[in-house]
Amino acid sequence: MSCVCVDAMGGDEKPEVVLEGIAEALAADPELTVLVAGNEDVVVPFCAKHERARALVTTEVIGMGEHPTEAVRSKKDSSIVRGLMAVRKGEADGFFSAGSTGAIFAAASLSVGRIRGVKRACIATSIPGSTGRPSVFLDMGANADVRPEMLVQFAQMGRAYSRVVVGVDDPKVALLSNGAEDTKGSAAVVEAHQALAALDADWFCGNCEGSDLLAGRFDVIVTDGFTGNVALKAMEGTAKFVLGAIKKAVGSSKRAAAGAMMLKPTLKGLAHELMGEEYGGAVLLGLKAPVLIGHGATSVEAVKNGTLSCKRALDSQLVDKIAAEVAQAK
Amino acid sequence: MSCVCVDAMGGDEKPEVVLEGIAEALAADPELTVLVAGNEDVVVPFCAKHERARALVTTEVIGMGEHPTEAVRSKKDSSIVRGLMAVRKGEADGFFSAGSTGAIFAAASLSVGRIRGVKRACIATSIPGSTGRPSVFLDMGANADVRPEMLVQFAQMGRAYSRVVVGVDDPKVALLSNGAEDTKGSAAVVEAHQALAALDADWFCGNCEGSDLLAGRFDVIVTDGFTGNVALKAMEGTAKFVLGAIKKAVGSSKRAAAGAMMLKPTLKGLAHELMGEEYGGAVLLGLKAPVLIGHGATSVEAVKNGTLSCKRALDSQLVDKIAAEVAQAK
Repeated sequence: MSCVCVDAMGGDEKPEVVLEGIAEALAADPELTVLVAGNEDVVVPFCAKHERARALVTTEVIGMGEHPTEAVRSKKDSSIVRGLMAVRKGEADGFFSAGSTGAIFAAASLSVGRIRGVKRACIATSIPGSTGRPSVFLDMGANADVRPEMLVQFAQMGRAYSRVVVGVDDPKVALLSNGAEDTKGSAAVVEAHQALAALDADWFCGNCEGSDLLAGRFDVIVTDGFTGNVALKAMEGTAKFVLGAIKKAVGSSKRAAAGAMMLKPTLKGLAHELMGEEYGGAVLLGLKAPVLIGHGATSVEAVKNGTLSCKRALDSQLVDKIAAEVAQAK
Repeated sequence: MSCVCVDAMGGDEKPEVVLEGIAEALAADPELTVLVAGNEDVVVPFCAKHERARALVTTEVIGMGEHPTEAVRSKKDSSIVRGLMAVRKGEADGFFSAGSTGAIFAAASLSVGRIRGVKRACIATSIPGSTGRPSVFLDMGANADVRPEMLVQFAQMGRAYSRVVVGVDDPKVALLSNGAEDTKGSAAVVEAHQALAALDADWFCGNCEGSDLLAGRFDVIVTDGFTGNVALKAMEGTAKFVLGAIKKAVGSSKRAAAGAMMLKPTLKGLAHELMGEEYGGAVLLGLKAPVLIGHGATSVEAVKNGTLSCKRALDSQLVDKIAAEVAQAK
């Protein structure tokens, strides 16, 4: 039995959506227990009805727009801070929330702590690929400045996550750069490339470019948190731009309007995939417990999947495998 | 009279396309003279037919796929190296080519040289905006590692270009970062933000994010060459991904196929705009002469526009204005 702490207050939706997701996760996995963190009126009635759910009553909520570190510092009794503290104390084994990524990262770094040997924790997400093969993309924003050895560890941690949680046998890893050649990149990227190449491992595929991000060519794509954040938001913005331009065309021509109407299901699916509703989920790597983050615009399905993914990370001992991967390559 | 040196051999198209573009530029501007660089059989017959065209006969061509600095070093008699050398010697006042951006940047840095006080030359391009307002985006790839003062100069140079060549009265400038708050960014970006804010100028709008790139909110968006390259290619890749997914849907459903057929003109326009055919043009900023680069997949129209833009940069004294902007803010 593993216990996942789920933040009932996280995300833009009502807590009822999160609770329904938890109920579905409990129904799907009889080995799952849940610690539900949130306001008394939300969590207590829910836990009274569900055998494998315990309540963690908190009184504060960190909003999506709040300054992460300030919110974590001032709201000690928030569902995020208390939930992650429960993980630290061993009252739960992992954490899932659809709340603010920044606040969760800040609180988890403080309370859960890093795996021995890991220089920096980072945030990974999944991006779709045109071949149907998604990629684990990291760091998506935690570390704006990185040293080469951090990029090397991101590669190792992303690989462990891809193998253990995504289920890829021998994940192929590429390093994001401004050119495919070995010598291309910032000084840190060039040095990280050399260090990764020196591992002499089949899994390192060298540099890839921005145009490879959605090409579905690699299982893991590594970059610093500054570039990762800009690239993800640029992709999101471009998808919006393209879909917006199609919408605009609808107003200007009957022909285009009819075309867009017929394409609507396709376009809607794409919007989901590219505008954060699919890839919006994230996982913190390098911490002593699995911490998963759902997209703020969450759904019953997303909470269920997030909770079960956290359970899967526990069952498959993600943390131990990351520790082994990082220790081995030192 | 200003003389623009045009590389007849640059780009993926046949030289005939470039020559036709030059002929149209000559017809459009009676004050324009052109120095046409390229193989004898290409440039001599053309110049014999056009009064304001002189031939610069060269024997080598730098291909689009060649390593930039190596090609510039080894092909001394290429149209790019000789053409830029002609600018250095005063035989032409500016340069336009649809050839390899990397090779042109390398050759121009060596032969044309930087404006006094400019720390690094950079490459700017124009990206479309959903409001219809395009942005000058720089650096798109020349400088993978930058110091804060270089980002400040990129802002000044981009602003001068937007004012003088694009024709914006008082261009608004934003700094690309991984968050809108002043404190967000890599160490270099945070420091550049402080330096730009210290100028106390109305035109500095603070940080913007990757999702703002195509939002048409700013006239100039500044970043380092690593992030700029990744972001541009990520946008290109996303546009391809979206259009590819629409194409795929066409195969799977008659309804979607009919829709896509009706939307075809709209989608084609978007592909042009986002996949390098529109924003693909670039300009080198910080050098002692205007150097403009057309997209490799060029056209008669693109060569005509590129040549005339170079002439406009000369007429409006872009170089002097960049020098003044940089000197003023020191």
